[in-house]
Amino acid sequence: MARIVQKFGGTSVADIPRIENVVAKVKREIDAGNQVAVVVSAMAGVTNHLVDLTRQIDKLHDAREYDVVVATGEQVTSGLLALALQKQGIKARSWQGWQIPIRTDGVHGKARIEAIEIAEFSRRMDTGEVAVVSGFQGLGPDQRVTTLGRGGSDTSAVALAAALQADRCDIYTDVDGVYTTDPRIVAKARKLDKISYEEMLEMASVGAKVLQIRSVELAMKLGVRLRVLSSFSEDPGTLVVGEEEIVEKELVSGIAYSRDEAKITLTLVADRPGVAAAIFGPLADAAINVDMIVQNASGQGRTDLTFTVIKSDLERAVQVLTQKKPELGFDDLLFDPNVAKVSVIGVGMRSHSGVALGMFRALADKGINIQVISTSEIKISVLIAEEYAELAVHALHAAYGLDAD
Amino acid sequence: MARIVQKFGGTSVADIPRIENVVAKVKREIDAGNQVAVVVSAMAGVTNHLVDLTRQIDKLHDAREYDVVVATGEQVTSGLLALALQKQGIKARSWQGWQIPIRTDGVHGKARIEAIEIAEFSRRMDTGEVAVVSGFQGLGPDQRVTTLGRGGSDTSAVALAAALQADRCDIYTDVDGVYTTDPRIVAKARKLDKISYEEMLEMASVGAKVLQIRSVELAMKLGVRLRVLSSFSEDPGTLVVGEEEIVEKELVSGIAYSRDEAKITLTLVADRPGVAAAIFGPLADAAINVDMIVQNASGQGRTDLTFTVIKSDLERAVQVLTQKKPELGFDDLLFDPNVAKVSVIGVGMRSHSGVALGMFRALADKGINIQVISTSEIKISVLIAEEYAELAVHALHAAYGLDAD
Repeated sequence: MARIVQKFGGTSVADIPRIENVVAKVKREIDAGNQVAVVVSAMAGVTNHLVDLTRQIDKLHDAREYDVVVATGEQVTSGLLALALQKQGIKARSWQGWQIPIRTDGVHGKARIEAIEIAEFSRRMDTGEVAVVSGFQGLGPDQRVTTLGRGGSDTSAVALAAALQADRCDIYTDVDGVYTTDPRIVAKARKLDKISYEEMLEMASVGAKVLQIRSVELAMKLGVRLRVLSSFSEDPGTLVVGEEEIVEKELVSGIAYSRDEAKITLTLVADRPGVAAAIFGPLADAAINVDMIVQNASGQGRTDLTFTVIKSDLERAVQVLTQKKPELGFDDLLFDPNVAKVSVIGVGMRSHSGVALGMFRALADKGINIQVISTSEIKISVLIAEEYAELAVHALHAAYGLDAD
Repeated sequence: MARIVQKFGGTSVADIPRIENVVAKVKREIDAGNQVAVVVSAMAGVTNHLVDLTRQIDKLHDAREYDVVVATGEQVTSGLLALALQKQGIKARSWQGWQIPIRTDGVHGKARIEAIEIAEFSRRMDTGEVAVVSGFQGLGPDQRVTTLGRGGSDTSAVALAAALQADRCDIYTDVDGVYTTDPRIVAKARKLDKISYEEMLEMASVGAKVLQIRSVELAMKLGVRLRVLSSFSEDPGTLVVGEEEIVEKELVSGIAYSRDEAKITLTLVADRPGVAAAIFGPLADAAINVDMIVQNASGQGRTDLTFTVIKSDLERAVQVLTQKKPELGFDDLLFDPNVAKVSVIGVGMRSHSGVALGMFRALADKGINIQVISTSEIKISVLIAEEYAELAVHALHAAYGLDAD
């Protein structure tokens, strides 16, 4: 007997027939002799409707009351799923965040889970009762309802799985799992059976949006084995686990890309201590996130500094830097929104050299110019002209042997 | 400074502009220096939608999960109203049933309030904060969400007013108050400034549906002064209070009517002890409520027995009695769904004779035949042919001097 946490997102519980489809997924685990806790989101569209109601009143709302309103979406789903399970003869009851309780800090609207008091909840699961839990919700220090922010139900599921010492946390969504790259671009993309937390984080943050980054980070920290799979197919999905569980490490697991970034270059920046801080300080103050940073000092007292920001922040970033030009003392500010970031990801590259070289060659063969290079232990990213993005992804996917047969 | 409980029903909070209209009603009490607790229902239509979702799954639902789903309607309104109050600079916070808590028994779907733990709630009101309370909700003995049944928000408001020792409980609805009779029938119907609990109960139970009967009973029992008034006008409405508060008692306060009843007559029933029990026992077992009962024993061993049931129960009642005919030993069973009950109501009639006579004369003047008469301390009801109902109400309204000038 194992303990399994299953999480179903909004599209998986969008109407009563889909909720009944969820019952079938739960029943399969029960029939396999497992104890099951199910974490649910609000029915698709409901949270947006509730948020819209609060915005009709006031955009600068009291986050405590905002939480009271939006938390009801999950509450409805939890009651409905409990009823649907009971109809199939499965013992079940709903749990709201305040009933377990899932204790959070007091940051309403984006609270963080601090503790889950699991004793009574766990005892009830031991009686064979399926626990249906409203995701996204918690109980703040002042005994008021909190919510975890968008996508918080994934976080609820992971935290609950850790508290229950569950064998697995299955995140049901509308895709079959994690692919070697975006299947909409590369028809030969393959679904991965396993991927490490670290790879998943890199994949997620560069565009392959399957799981909330925050929930993957939490799963890695708490050692929760995740599975990503579809509510609408029988595919076993992708396991997201620690690197040690992956015996046959692929050199490269996937190719990710992002069209969301823009490039800024400051020319002839002074090559002396404190310059980088002087440049990036004002950007941080303006809440502008900087991603890739490349500085290539020539040793002649002046250097070019290139970095990327989210496209929608570009105009503001240029404004901030232009204002600071007298202090920063650069010669020119160049920028280009028409760039794409393409990344090769794999834990295997830790122990293999030559991966980067393979990437550069594959791109060169297609005549694609590399503007910026940035590397980490398990990822190599390059910035290229946006028009080459799809060609680059195709070429790299084939070059690393990821194409399906 | 007084403490006021205000209760707003579904049509009063049906959309954001109406919720903002509620803010104006609250603000007026605040500006008058009062402490205010506001009890809200779900936005119009929301509860029906939620009930419908549960029914799509299963009609024989687990009432605990039904409560989890339907209680969310009030939660949404409470958060939205708190936000709308804050927007106008009024300190406010929402309270769910489990947060106060409003403790109930465990009869989910139609729970009864057992206790309200008011200390912290009351302390917060003393700071000048408006308490916005989700009506209809409670916390059961097993720490699960209960609901009080349809119209339960009126009951929530009255119980809260009693616990707070409030000076008044204002029930906002979509009518101006309690009228001497149905203004849709009698254009000259007058709004009453005051009415006693007892009269209100008789008015409500015979068709003038303004307040939930249960909440009036509770207000009478707990000594809560009620006021019925409209969300959509400036009219001060009708006070519902103890008889002792009404100095100038009217002989007759109102004329009520009901077309909901049907008449059944059993002829030549044995005139001996136990016969009534033998007849009404099987009806009670079939959950059929009997209203007016008239037996007129002639002293010759046999009597006719006439009574009324709700029209929709008529067919079942006839079936039950026909099956029992051999035991009951009546001669014939006659029934008539085309009847109306018309009632004259007034606490003044306690100390005046001649009220009944006036009624009979007024009806006789119009050639209306009285089929059944039934009286209580403050009410005289007659059963007449349904086609005369409006004529009778008009005649009686005029005869007792209730017509507006």
